[in-house]
Amino acid sequence: MQTMLEEMVEKYREVGHQGKLADYIPELAKQDPLSLGIAIRTVDGEEYSAGDCPLTFTLQSISKVITLILALMDHGEDVVFSRVGMEPTGDPFNAIYKLEMYSPGKPLNPMINAGALVVSSLIGGNTVDQRLQRVLALVRDMADNPKIEINTAVYHSERATGHRNRAMAHFLKEFGMIDDVESTLELYFQQCSIAVNCRDLARMGLCLAQYGVNQSGKQVIPQELARLVKTFMVTCGMYNASGEFAIYAGIPAKSGVSGGILASVPDKMGIGVFGPALDEKGNSIAGSALLKGLSRSYNLSIF
Amino acid sequence: MQTMLEEMVEKYREVGHQGKLADYIPELAKQDPLSLGIAIRTVDGEEYSAGDCPLTFTLQSISKVITLILALMDHGEDVVFSRVGMEPTGDPFNAIYKLEMYSPGKPLNPMINAGALVVSSLIGGNTVDQRLQRVLALVRDMADNPKIEINTAVYHSERATGHRNRAMAHFLKEFGMIDDVESTLELYFQQCSIAVNCRDLARMGLCLAQYGVNQSGKQVIPQELARLVKTFMVTCGMYNASGEFAIYAGIPAKSGVSGGILASVPDKMGIGVFGPALDEKGNSIAGSALLKGLSRSYNLSIF
Amino acid sequence: MQTMLEEMVEKYREVGHQGKLADYIPELAKQDPLSLGIAIRTVDGEEYSAGDCPLTFTLQSISKVITLILALMDHGEDVVFSRVGMEPTGDPFNAIYKLEMYSPGKPLNPMINAGALVVSSLIGGNTVDQRLQRVLALVRDMADNPKIEINTAVYHSERATGHRNRAMAHFLKEFGMIDDVESTLELYFQQCSIAVNCRDLARMGLCLAQYGVNQSGKQVIPQELARLVKTFMVTCGMYNASGEFAIYAGIPAKSGVSGGILASVPDKMGIGVFGPALDEKGNSIAGSALLKGLSRSYNLSIF
Amino acid sequence: MQTMLEEMVEKYREVGHQGKLADYIPELAKQDPLSLGIAIRTVDGEEYSAGDCPLTFTLQSISKVITLILALMDHGEDVVFSRVGMEPTGDPFNAIYKLEMYSPGKPLNPMINAGALVVSSLIGGNTVDQRLQRVLALVRDMADNPKIEINTAVYHSERATGHRNRAMAHFLKEFGMIDDVESTLELYFQQCSIAVNCRDLARMGLCLAQYGVNQSGKQVIPQELARLVKTFMVTCGMYNASGEFAIYAGIPAKSGVSGGILASVPDKMGIGVFGPALDEKGNSIAGSALLKGLSRSYNLSIF
Repeated sequence: MQTMLEEMVEKYREVGHQGKLADYIPELAKQDPLSLGIAIRTVDGEEYSAGDCPLTFTLQSISKVITLILALMDHGEDVVFSRVGMEPTGDPFNAIYKLEMYSPGKPLNPMINAGALVVSSLIGGNTVDQRLQRVLALVRDMADNPKIEINTAVYHSERATGHRNRAMAHFLKEFGMIDDVESTLELYFQQCSIAVNCRDLARMGLCLAQYGVNQSGKQVIPQELARLVKTFMVTCGMYNASGEFAIYAGIPAKSGVSGGILASVPDKMGIGVFGPALDEKGNSIAGSALLKGLSRSYNLSIF
Repeated sequence: MQTMLEEMVEKYREVGHQGKLADYIPELAKQDPLSLGIAIRTVDGEEYSAGDCPLTFTLQSISKVITLILALMDHGEDVVFSRVGMEPTGDPFNAIYKLEMYSPGKPLNPMINAGALVVSSLIGGNTVDQRLQRVLALVRDMADNPKIEINTAVYHSERATGHRNRAMAHFLKEFGMIDDVESTLELYFQQCSIAVNCRDLARMGLCLAQYGVNQSGKQVIPQELARLVKTFMVTCGMYNASGEFAIYAGIPAKSGVSGGILASVPDKMGIGVFGPALDEKGNSIAGSALLKGLSRSYNLSIF
Repeated sequence: MQTMLEEMVEKYREVGHQGKLADYIPELAKQDPLSLGIAIRTVDGEEYSAGDCPLTFTLQSISKVITLILALMDHGEDVVFSRVGMEPTGDPFNAIYKLEMYSPGKPLNPMINAGALVVSSLIGGNTVDQRLQRVLALVRDMADNPKIEINTAVYHSERATGHRNRAMAHFLKEFGMIDDVESTLELYFQQCSIAVNCRDLARMGLCLAQYGVNQSGKQVIPQELARLVKTFMVTCGMYNASGEFAIYAGIPAKSGVSGGILASVPDKMGIGVFGPALDEKGNSIAGSALLKGLSRSYNLSIF
Repeated sequence: MQTMLEEMVEKYREVGHQGKLADYIPELAKQDPLSLGIAIRTVDGEEYSAGDCPLTFTLQSISKVITLILALMDHGEDVVFSRVGMEPTGDPFNAIYKLEMYSPGKPLNPMINAGALVVSSLIGGNTVDQRLQRVLALVRDMADNPKIEINTAVYHSERATGHRNRAMAHFLKEFGMIDDVESTLELYFQQCSIAVNCRDLARMGLCLAQYGVNQSGKQVIPQELARLVKTFMVTCGMYNASGEFAIYAGIPAKSGVSGGILASVPDKMGIGVFGPALDEKGNSIAGSALLKGLSRSYNLSIF
């Protein structure tokens, strides 16, 4: 598999030419669009990696999976799903119009920005920092890596430019869907700035593939929640390209605008991918292609 | 399993009280809202059924799965997906506004009405009747039942009241997404009126669960297409409740406003359900609940 | 004034270069984009004209003013405004999404296509031809020209290509806003095809400027209705450029995609303009500019 | 006229029963829904008043007229209309979805909240207070009343609850339509809190009716701008009931959710009305009815 992975990375690396670096967060625009890395960790304990695996990047929207798990652990499904729906939207991740159209103020799902803001507002803790530490603790548990931290430069960059997220938070406040705008935004900008590499993501994916049991054998997420978030990853994990990704890859996955993708093949493996050039929907263009190729080669689709 | 099924049907039958019969097609409004039936056919050749299994009902939106398969067999993915997308919408199945908003005239997916009309327009054949016969032939092959026919009364009823579908067809014509409005609508109204029972649906579900091989062992659908439509069934099969159904049932399924649900558990079984009282999204309210319960009891989720 | 008018026509004729001929109705695409004509008829009985005044063109959306008057004469304000609103929309004239968003099926005003279809469905008469004859009769009365007829080639052209209007009519039928789709569309396509010249329009505008009294002194429209339609011409007469036109011209006016504009300065004059090159909103680009210039020069704004 | 006015006020006062006090700004909810007052100031220098004329209320959206004038005086039409459009919308005043749909971030007109925020951001001055003083100075000049001030309690109330306006301001910032979010919101909340009575509004309306000349004969607004804002008042002044108000009153007018209405009959008179019970669009329900009745009785329509 190792050889195969290396060949595939080189093959798909070129796809990066067709993508574009995220430019709305200045820190994200400073990357090499042809970077591409992958790491895999199987349920049998084997680990493979290829390409620019050691590079560090930030979770961005991948963090929405983590906070969803935490909010569900803190409050249960009834509370969480009274404030955020379960349906994919077909719209760009930062669209605001549907908040106005349907049951105003209730975001359609926790994987779009509006929904993720609601979820972040539900994370327990007395201060923003306490809440961030809980998010970090879960990321570290899933990845079995106690050294994971936030990237402060990216955090400040997001904070300074996140006007649209601020707009959404105030809009949600209007409808009583979040309580405190400022602390919610602070936590959100920080959770997006958690820095990882492909290996971390692979292990996080393994944890979900093993229904919440991380590589050291510890149950860090309740089994039922691990299943639930994998479902969201299929229906809404790749923004408004989730439907296509389900068809051509068929793997629960969550992408971020940093170019990272967290993928989890139930009962088989976790996969971490990084390729910073994005397609027009906001997914890593080479990373998506690589995952589709891998799924085809190793028959990984759950369908 | 037989006993269990019978108990579950009686338990979930009551849920029908909370639903409503479809009233926009007069023929559909003449049913007993408490009817509930289920049939299961496993890959091991076992068949179970319970409740009002022998009742006959029409495919309605379930036919969208069949025509999608046929259009893909006739034209391939490139042609079909240049006219219809792959993304769930978060909107009601008969919404028209998105046709206007995004890449005008290209419906977001083949499971909403607009998308299904485009798909129907692609079914090969010289006359509407030839095209209908091809749809019927595939349904019969999947269900291994040569006696399946259309219900003429329902067909005439749909034809007389389908103003919104007519509106969509003309709108799609405006953007060149369909060629002939009248023949497309004729085929669409007829395919919706194909009459089946739960046993037929269970066998059709089995055919998809076996990657296109029906119960007699005949490959009636290419393997890859069977997988593809199951994916659509997960992301868009239950209208804008697909996300929730994926979470709580995790089974590829397609519902129709007649109250039927075609479900397919990969490598395991096909399931046919019928319960005419609908929830507000247009899915059989008791049928959905029954499938969720069944999935929980027998651990059928693919996630 | 005659000299001035001739100078202005030559000055504004060049603006036609920046516009585009309507191409969705093939018959309309066969014009000279630099044509520009104007006719004025004052309350003192003076008549001026300049440029391509003798050219004949079709009313298109200008006919919406006539049918609104007729529907109001037939049914009164209560009936008419229960089916169509009074508010400008800010959207393109052929947008369909708002029918779905607000009080479904009730078009926001009678000057957008959806609203005009509802209005046409209300014109009294036993057959489409009887109804058309009543529309023609009112146009002839207003213009004091018994020779006005429809242009059959344009009518057939519209009929063959009016998919979007068909879509809207079926959508409106769905909500019970119109009774018979086919006869409504027939009348609509025919009323749009009524052929006039600038002089006809000027006299029609005079009739409105004189509160319903035509140039021969006959009250052909009730005074109150003449006022009412002039108000609609200000708020919605120039499609979604009505606001801008109100600011820079300040004259009640209604445009059509043929390039004609019917304008009426209360207590002063009627104006007819023709220039077939359109701006992106669908108004005669040179004609609009000419009217704005004229208003400035002669201080014609009602504000 | 005095007697007539008194009779009309008593007649229309009852209409207040059908309306509702604005409740989203707590300070506004503390009024008597049956209050109704009117003041008129004619170009001949006569002044009439009736009902609860002495009551004080805040400008709210009426202030949008003032800031539009000031922004146009500061920057000219080209700059202002590059950031805000001239078209009525047909949507509620606080709708956000159109910012996303059309030329993102450019509000359709300066009378909806999003547009008014853009306009406020353009008012010249080094500090929020300097800018507020300029707004106040223009209000005082128009009303010829140097004692006009802001109502601090209302200002604090708006500031504490204006989540939706905050959302819009951040959204506009995202698209570069405003520069500084906080100072823009501060000015906006303050301008909305300027306290006046009906007499003040009548004089302000007179100033517009006299093309910018206030009752002391001072030209406080350029003539062309006075005309321009009266046009906006007709097309967008009464929120998404502007079309109806144009038909049944035909008077340039601007309403606020406090229940005030500033009206201006060109060449004739200014009118100030106050009635705090609102209709569902946000206009004073009794005040609107009173103005329509007055227009009918005295033939004040400009159409």
